[in-house]
Amino acid sequence: MNRTAVPPPVTMVLDAADAWLPMRMEAVEERLRLLVEGHGDDLAADAGATLAAGGKRLRPMLVLLCAGPGAGEPAVRAAAAIELVHMATLVHDDVLDAAPLRRGRPTVVAQSGRDRALAVGDLLFSRAFAELGHDGSERQVELLSGASVALALGELAQRRDAFDISISAERYLDRCGLKTARLFECACQIGRAGKGGELAANSAEPDLSLERALQTFGREIGLAFQLLDDVLDVTGPPERTGKARGTDLLDGTVTLPLILAREEDSSLAKIDLRELDADGAVDVCDRVAATGALERVRVDARGRVETAKHALVTSGLRPEQRQLLDLVADGVVERYS
Amino acid sequence: MNRTAVPPPVTMVLDAADAWLPMRMEAVEERLRLLVEGHGDDLAADAGATLAAGGKRLRPMLVLLCAGPGAGEPAVRAAAAIELVHMATLVHDDVLDAAPLRRGRPTVVAQSGRDRALAVGDLLFSRAFAELGHDGSERQVELLSGASVALALGELAQRRDAFDISISAERYLDRCGLKTARLFECACQIGRAGKGGELAANSAEPDLSLERALQTFGREIGLAFQLLDDVLDVTGPPERTGKARGTDLLDGTVTLPLILAREEDSSLAKIDLRELDADGAVDVCDRVAATGALERVRVDARGRVETAKHALVTSGLRPEQRQLLDLVADGVVERYS
Repeated sequence: MNRTAVPPPVTMVLDAADAWLPMRMEAVEERLRLLVEGHGDDLAADAGATLAAGGKRLRPMLVLLCAGPGAGEPAVRAAAAIELVHMATLVHDDVLDAAPLRRGRPTVVAQSGRDRALAVGDLLFSRAFAELGHDGSERQVELLSGASVALALGELAQRRDAFDISISAERYLDRCGLKTARLFECACQIGRAGKGGELAANSAEPDLSLERALQTFGREIGLAFQLLDDVLDVTGPPERTGKARGTDLLDGTVTLPLILAREEDSSLAKIDLRELDADGAVDVCDRVAATGALERVRVDARGRVETAKHALVTSGLRPEQRQLLDLVADGVVERYS
Repeated sequence: MNRTAVPPPVTMVLDAADAWLPMRMEAVEERLRLLVEGHGDDLAADAGATLAAGGKRLRPMLVLLCAGPGAGEPAVRAAAAIELVHMATLVHDDVLDAAPLRRGRPTVVAQSGRDRALAVGDLLFSRAFAELGHDGSERQVELLSGASVALALGELAQRRDAFDISISAERYLDRCGLKTARLFECACQIGRAGKGGELAANSAEPDLSLERALQTFGREIGLAFQLLDDVLDVTGPPERTGKARGTDLLDGTVTLPLILAREEDSSLAKIDLRELDADGAVDVCDRVAATGALERVRVDARGRVETAKHALVTSGLRPEQRQLLDLVADGVVERYS
């Protein structure tokens, strides 16, 4: 893995961890490369864009960290599977949004058209389950398919709520749970749900208290991640986010900053999102920022990161493992502050 | 299940089988209904169209027949899983083709738009693996994900070869293998690859000769099915096929009838498919038919059905099971003759 290309939080964790983690992250990267290149011509053209769209590799890192140093090849496969589902989702989301760029590179849909992008997404998705088919457990298939169902339901919910400026914070959080947090939960649980999982090997009975702790950890950092992502859409700057301020608004996606801002500035509740242009969207962003809503969202996100870290305190995880997971959790906030 | 709505080959097999088969087919139908309705609003609107698009339920029937009467609930789940993957593919294919109708009903993309159709396809696909996650075996996940990868690769191959009138018969058959036959193979193998599989229960070692026989059976009837489907695109009549003659040509999909006709009538090799309109497509269909290529394709398909049936002779399957599978194989030809 090209370490210099990896963004800060992942790099920090890699620097803090013993050699096993960078080695296994490299093994995940190698598997992803093999899987994508293994289909020859059919994928090679889009492989670069798709792999790059994966970005931070935060989810595979969570898989490996939660599985622990004792987990071997099966954890690497589970980590690759999670990332493949994530990549598939990005490719399909870009089809829906007709997005030209992701992280500054052309998307598959922009490069190769809708038809190929749809099929490439399906292929990545199928490959994810093929990874688990090789040596995964039933529980792992259950976790990953459950998260994939949630992703699709989240996408449907987002389409259904599109351009509805009156949606509630509760509904917004439900959607974030489906679209973002479930895959984080899955990433935290799946590594130790396999046959080679460190804890699975030590006890015949699954350790439910640890399972729940990891689920809470994944859920809360997933939600914090999404909340802060939605703040970034309002604040920019575009040079850093790689997209214009107010892109969500232009797509009709109402997020927590606007929902909270509506309470302070009732004129925001009357905007017709369908009529917004790029300048209008930037203007709405400024009005949202003026209400102080962004700070409220950041406080909520930081609270979730604390809840996530707290869930691990009595989980029975080894101190070194917990320390690295705490670093990941802090990194989620760090990246956006 | 509404028996009157079921097309002939499936009805014939149901009539010939003992009560266990119709009962289990009904159980599959019930699971599909539950799965689709279980997501409430998010799917209810598209559920009718999607379920109906599933059509003949040939693949679930193959799962149940190959698993045998001794297989229980796990075979029903595997049958539902196969059908869900098939349905997901249809929904996504209709997005790619912007198809208005399937079996005379509006497609999901026509009824609810591209965005919903893409997410509905993803959801059905995820649900398929969730079925296996519940009580499936690793081998079943491997089989289904392998078939799903093949479907996506087949779709990519079809897009890559689109409008290329010079593609070889070999390339065409490779594509049919990926797009159609692999899921049939999977349907024939997956029912007995589960923990509750009749044969799996009787022996610790998997019976490779039976596994190979079922794979050959699935592959050959899958290919025969596709070949005859491609003949129907040329012959119509539209009242029966539910689509205009030459629809494949208009989509740029070159199939065996045209490939063989090219050998007899070299003027067919010079057609620019991108320039065809509906009348032009019907004209090409007539010219293909005039070469006698359709009969050559039918002979090939019938030969494959015989190969399929022959593979079962020494498979060790019970005579009653074999007899019903022979009926399915004959039904594939019957439906089109």
